[in-house]
Amino acid sequence: MTGRLTALEAAQRIADGSLTSEALVRACLDRIGEREPVVQAWQHLDMDAALNMARHVDRFGSGPLKGIPIGVKDIIDTADMPTGYGSPLYETFRPPRDAACVALARQAGASVLGKTVTTEFAYFQPGKTRNPRDPGRTPGGSSSGSAAAVADGMVPLAFGTQTAGSIIRPASFCGCVGYKPTFGLIDRTGVRPFAESLDTVGFFASTVQDAAFFASAIAGRPDLHFTDEVFRLRIGLTRTHAWEAAEPATATALDEAAARLRATGLEVREVALPERWRGLLDAQKTIMAFEAARSHAPEMLTASDRLSVKLRELLEAGALIAPEDYDAAKALVAESRAGFSDVLDGLDVLLTPSAPGEAPEGLEATGDPVFNRMWTALGVPCISVPALTGPSGMPIGVQVVGRWGDDRRALAASAAIEQVVLSM
Amino acid sequence: MTGRLTALEAAQRIADGSLTSEALVRACLDRIGEREPVVQAWQHLDMDAALNMARHVDRFGSGPLKGIPIGVKDIIDTADMPTGYGSPLYETFRPPRDAACVALARQAGASVLGKTVTTEFAYFQPGKTRNPRDPGRTPGGSSSGSAAAVADGMVPLAFGTQTAGSIIRPASFCGCVGYKPTFGLIDRTGVRPFAESLDTVGFFASTVQDAAFFASAIAGRPDLHFTDEVFRLRIGLTRTHAWEAAEPATATALDEAAARLRATGLEVREVALPERWRGLLDAQKTIMAFEAARSHAPEMLTASDRLSVKLRELLEAGALIAPEDYDAAKALVAESRAGFSDVLDGLDVLLTPSAPGEAPEGLEATGDPVFNRMWTALGVPCISVPALTGPSGMPIGVQVVGRWGDDRRALAASAAIEQVVLSM
Repeated sequence: MTGRLTALEAAQRIADGSLTSEALVRACLDRIGEREPVVQAWQHLDMDAALNMARHVDRFGSGPLKGIPIGVKDIIDTADMPTGYGSPLYETFRPPRDAACVALARQAGASVLGKTVTTEFAYFQPGKTRNPRDPGRTPGGSSSGSAAAVADGMVPLAFGTQTAGSIIRPASFCGCVGYKPTFGLIDRTGVRPFAESLDTVGFFASTVQDAAFFASAIAGRPDLHFTDEVFRLRIGLTRTHAWEAAEPATATALDEAAARLRATGLEVREVALPERWRGLLDAQKTIMAFEAARSHAPEMLTASDRLSVKLRELLEAGALIAPEDYDAAKALVAESRAGFSDVLDGLDVLLTPSAPGEAPEGLEATGDPVFNRMWTALGVPCISVPALTGPSGMPIGVQVVGRWGDDRRALAASAAIEQVVLSM
Repeated sequence: MTGRLTALEAAQRIADGSLTSEALVRACLDRIGEREPVVQAWQHLDMDAALNMARHVDRFGSGPLKGIPIGVKDIIDTADMPTGYGSPLYETFRPPRDAACVALARQAGASVLGKTVTTEFAYFQPGKTRNPRDPGRTPGGSSSGSAAAVADGMVPLAFGTQTAGSIIRPASFCGCVGYKPTFGLIDRTGVRPFAESLDTVGFFASTVQDAAFFASAIAGRPDLHFTDEVFRLRIGLTRTHAWEAAEPATATALDEAAARLRATGLEVREVALPERWRGLLDAQKTIMAFEAARSHAPEMLTASDRLSVKLRELLEAGALIAPEDYDAAKALVAESRAGFSDVLDGLDVLLTPSAPGEAPEGLEATGDPVFNRMWTALGVPCISVPALTGPSGMPIGVQVVGRWGDDRRALAASAAIEQVVLSM
């Protein structure tokens, strides 16, 4: 039962003494014991160590996240657990220290329950994780285990990372909240790089409030954690230049969410993105491939035969991209970033698809980040809010996009949208 | 003798068969054998391994840097050599892979001669290195060993990194060329982060031409390597808002360089920087401390007693900086970046001090990056060109600053300035 408390509720109960971290962790482990054979969200989990850690935190812990167990995507270094980056090349790797975000979580009182499954180097080659709502479907990726574990109630909070759509897409597919902050909000030291201009550390939670609570504790920014902020939301509905990729389920979810928001009297206005922004999708791909070819030069040089075909093809393609094309892609991103506020003129946030549709069937692929690449390139904050259910009964999220650095407003707006959409 | 060839000459001779890498490495090792007891530039150097590597490269190597030995600052991961980050905490660390820049160097045919001394985590706590021109003086930092080794003819090329002034300042103090590229030009995977918004991988060489040759091979940007480009240089001379820190030796060097350039008929115009830019010095300090407090959270959490007092004080101060102050510092940098081209209106590059004066006496401190912080914050390319000799006979560099992304022009201008200044 405690496993179904929100992280915020659990933290409050641990703080007032009506709940122990040990009991909370035990509830998580019970849920994991029951569900892990199907979901396979965890790359590394030591139940005894987790309980010992919880007891230790009950005695000596402090901080806003005191006693809250978290999952850590296995692309992020942990000193006390193996860190495999989803690659056979790092199967035996034990980093000398925690990543900065993990240390900051521990400093805030959290304890690391275990490492969650990542795709290979957070690219497209899937790990073992299945969608908790339907084990025949992908959980999405690359933060597959974190999304599945949180959505399935195995752990209240988890870290993810996003370079294309690795937080928003799996959150939508699994049915939890995913939050990719403004680029640079969370330090990346100890997070395996894929593409430096894009890689962003973010969060999974079961509510927007929890995601904000988690992020505010890690970033040391109490302001991020709005408390029942009420404001007259002005929302821009944008179908983006990628709309042809939207399946009927996503189109319906977006329309339905907009209708519900309008029904409560909120302003929802259709927004057409600038024609120039059509190039952002390809610009993101160019930047990602070009930078990945460089960041993975060590693996390509010494062990290319132990990389997946998918990844190797990307790295080979990236190495052939002309520097001028990369520079042009970066220039388009910079120009679009500078014009972002004009596009949002008079609006608080944009509402747009999280993913093309329900989680695709099969486990061989993790789905298409076509509705994420552009926003990741722009570096603006994105939140996927579980909205509706598709024709197959699978969850479908809607994505809330805010202004650069205005994560607080994007989160507060997402919470309002969550409330309206879920309450009807 | 071969140790005094430029890297470009050596590469050409290796390519045409009139020199072997083995002979070149042997010459480097001879110089090191002679000078290392005084200079102490190397953190790790295995002479037998270096010669074996050279023989291997002579047989099987290829690429523009074929056979050229390089030094690698010990803040940068190497799979075949220990990597200590200048900290007792990492004394026994062996990274699982090379950093991306090291792998790219090997791919281009270079061989890693050894690891050069860095200050602790590339901050201000000095290592053992002495200034090769006067062992009673600091070589500068944090790329102390790389600057000293290249300036002393121990190795033709070396990697450094700069977060405040860690390339330009030691290059000026030791008397070699230092090149900090545009932010992001060289991938940082496997380089220990200090402050993500500032950290930049760069180069030491004995000539500007060599620095450009090295950088072009690593970046995969042949364009960076100008070849005898002649253009009518328009140079802006700027004393910056930090001019009160300039010692007479630096003032003289800058004036003398300007006079020599003018005497050849080049345009050198005084440029006053915008009043708003006065804040960039403090903005850089704020960003550096705030980000370092986060990136070093793991060390602070588990081993703060094994950090130097200097570093611990920075991290403690950084943890107390209000996020709003950090955001304001970032905003000032972004605004100033956007206005940079206006300041350079009609000019190719700026000419400005590399450092306050000659290398300070003593080995307890590495000198003041006051003339570097602002440019690092702006992310623009900077090159220190050895210009003159100060009153104590120590070298003094002048700094050439170019537009964001226009590294080619900044390097070509630096080469022209180098030629004029050295030829008189």
